[in-house]
Amino acid sequence: MGVVIPLGEAASDAGIGKLWSLVRTDMDRVNQAIVARTGSDVAMIPEVANHLIESGGKRLRPMMTLAAAGLCGYSGDGHVKLAASVEFMHTATLLHDDVVDQSDMRRGKLAARMLWGNEASVLVGDFLLGQAFRMMVEVGSLPCLSVLADAAAVIAEGEVMQISAAKDTATTEDDYIAVIRAKTAALFAAACEVGPILAGRPKAEMAACRAYGTNLGIAFQLIDDALDYGGSSSTLGKNVGDDFREGKITLPVVLSFRRGSAEERAFWSRTLEKGEITDPDLDTAIATMRRHRAIEDTIERARHYGAMARDALELFPASEHKAALLDVVDFCIRRAN
Amino acid sequence: MGVVIPLGEAASDAGIGKLWSLVRTDMDRVNQAIVARTGSDVAMIPEVANHLIESGGKRLRPMMTLAAAGLCGYSGDGHVKLAASVEFMHTATLLHDDVVDQSDMRRGKLAARMLWGNEASVLVGDFLLGQAFRMMVEVGSLPCLSVLADAAAVIAEGEVMQISAAKDTATTEDDYIAVIRAKTAALFAAACEVGPILAGRPKAEMAACRAYGTNLGIAFQLIDDALDYGGSSSTLGKNVGDDFREGKITLPVVLSFRRGSAEERAFWSRTLEKGEITDPDLDTAIATMRRHRAIEDTIERARHYGAMARDALELFPASEHKAALLDVVDFCIRRAN
Repeated sequence: MGVVIPLGEAASDAGIGKLWSLVRTDMDRVNQAIVARTGSDVAMIPEVANHLIESGGKRLRPMMTLAAAGLCGYSGDGHVKLAASVEFMHTATLLHDDVVDQSDMRRGKLAARMLWGNEASVLVGDFLLGQAFRMMVEVGSLPCLSVLADAAAVIAEGEVMQISAAKDTATTEDDYIAVIRAKTAALFAAACEVGPILAGRPKAEMAACRAYGTNLGIAFQLIDDALDYGGSSSTLGKNVGDDFREGKITLPVVLSFRRGSAEERAFWSRTLEKGEITDPDLDTAIATMRRHRAIEDTIERARHYGAMARDALELFPASEHKAALLDVVDFCIRRAN
Repeated sequence: MGVVIPLGEAASDAGIGKLWSLVRTDMDRVNQAIVARTGSDVAMIPEVANHLIESGGKRLRPMMTLAAAGLCGYSGDGHVKLAASVEFMHTATLLHDDVVDQSDMRRGKLAARMLWGNEASVLVGDFLLGQAFRMMVEVGSLPCLSVLADAAAVIAEGEVMQISAAKDTATTEDDYIAVIRAKTAALFAAACEVGPILAGRPKAEMAACRAYGTNLGIAFQLIDDALDYGGSSSTLGKNVGDDFREGKITLPVVLSFRRGSAEERAFWSRTLEKGEITDPDLDTAIATMRRHRAIEDTIERARHYGAMARDALELFPASEHKAALLDVVDFCIRRAN
């Protein structure tokens, strides 16, 4: 199971099939909003935006918004625009990340910055963020705006935290979880929390949906980190070892470094801190991780957060939406197998 | 009169002295909000943000928000946070612009990207934009949020328009005005419009403040463009000829190209479209512009927009705030002398 699933195939996937069939009609409207709001008289904007948007991301985050709204019995229209806003925030982050990481590839295609330059990636990202806020304002819920504006600031804070820690092998597991809680989990949390807010549900349900999103987001990122040292280029939609080459300290590295010998630590310092990487180093890195069970244990940690996500939903009575959201947790973790 | 005025000197400037004394107390609160909201446990965020924020920009845009609110008799508190939001939106744009333009200098100092890297400039810009929206949400006026979210999207659209047109000497004056209407004037317009909205004033007054801001913003940018070919490094706070070296097509170039001989057009195509620039080319560019009165006429066009800005305010009865806002128009245009 790869990270990238073309939208059309999602229905046939056992893991998010239930989710997909529940939100399908609303997702059509979300997709229409996405197409409409990437439109601009400035031709480069839809070109750059659609290059990424049409490249077959799962659109998991907007589906979470729709499903959480459904879970809470919301019957209005606002969830569609908020779901599209969430996807735009995510797309803006990806465009900016590619510039920050100097990535060549994204979702198995050349990154937008390779085709249109860094400047287009920065500015089209800014445009999508502006359009996201426009849609949120149209929905008109100040509490939802508050949750999503918080997420926007926290995501950027997490990304800065990551570049600050990027070259530091002394990063602890706690440090690392703090980074991904901000850079990845904050958007999942916001995507899920706006559902009960729109539906006017009590605080406990808002908190439950938020906790579900946070823990799912952390699990999702940890699996991504594991896959970066364990998948193959075709299933990942990015080059295996990207994190390694970019000197990113992710949990598999943190665990390997702590558990390693002095010689192994020197290896991590040379490759990740000093960036002196030769051809066989990625294989050595993966072999070292396997020896210390660092990849398996990263997946094990993901299961822990997945279990917390599942428990957060226990507040809600059984429903199709609840079952679908529980399936998403399994889907996210099973990607690593 | 240079573009960069350290905050402390602003009071002694005849042009915006009236404005400064009217908004001084509120500006202290805006500055407190700015300091508080650049704070983060991630040390790099306040470092990067404050490098730019403390580098002595005029903070003209937040002063416009305060003055327009005063003009409309607003007696609440919301204008302070909105003014800080406007300054954060502006700062975020500058950080991203430096990456887009690959600038080395900003306000007479090394650009943040030269000290902390492109990635920090992109991400701290994103953080400030997130913080700006947080503050707007705290103020709680959906119509103000709408105006400012629109501006965020339009600014980015204008910047993309500019990079699309960057190397095209066939750009018309209309094309160029459309670019600066979006990338510069949209934020001035929004900064001024939120005042009457907060004060609950009639539509005609919102439109008047918006028109004032738009036309002032256009005049401001045209003078900046003229200064880029006419000032000196120390008064500009950036290197004279930056626009030329970056191949930016601004109004002085548009006018010189249209009015020029075939040989001169070949010069503009070589330098700006092909980017083949040698040492004496900047002097040749400036001499060519002088010969065609392109710099004077750019300033003349700025006067035209300045007059429209002034007329937009005629709706309002005489007041200290009105007089101060009228002075700002003169101040912006006199910078070129």
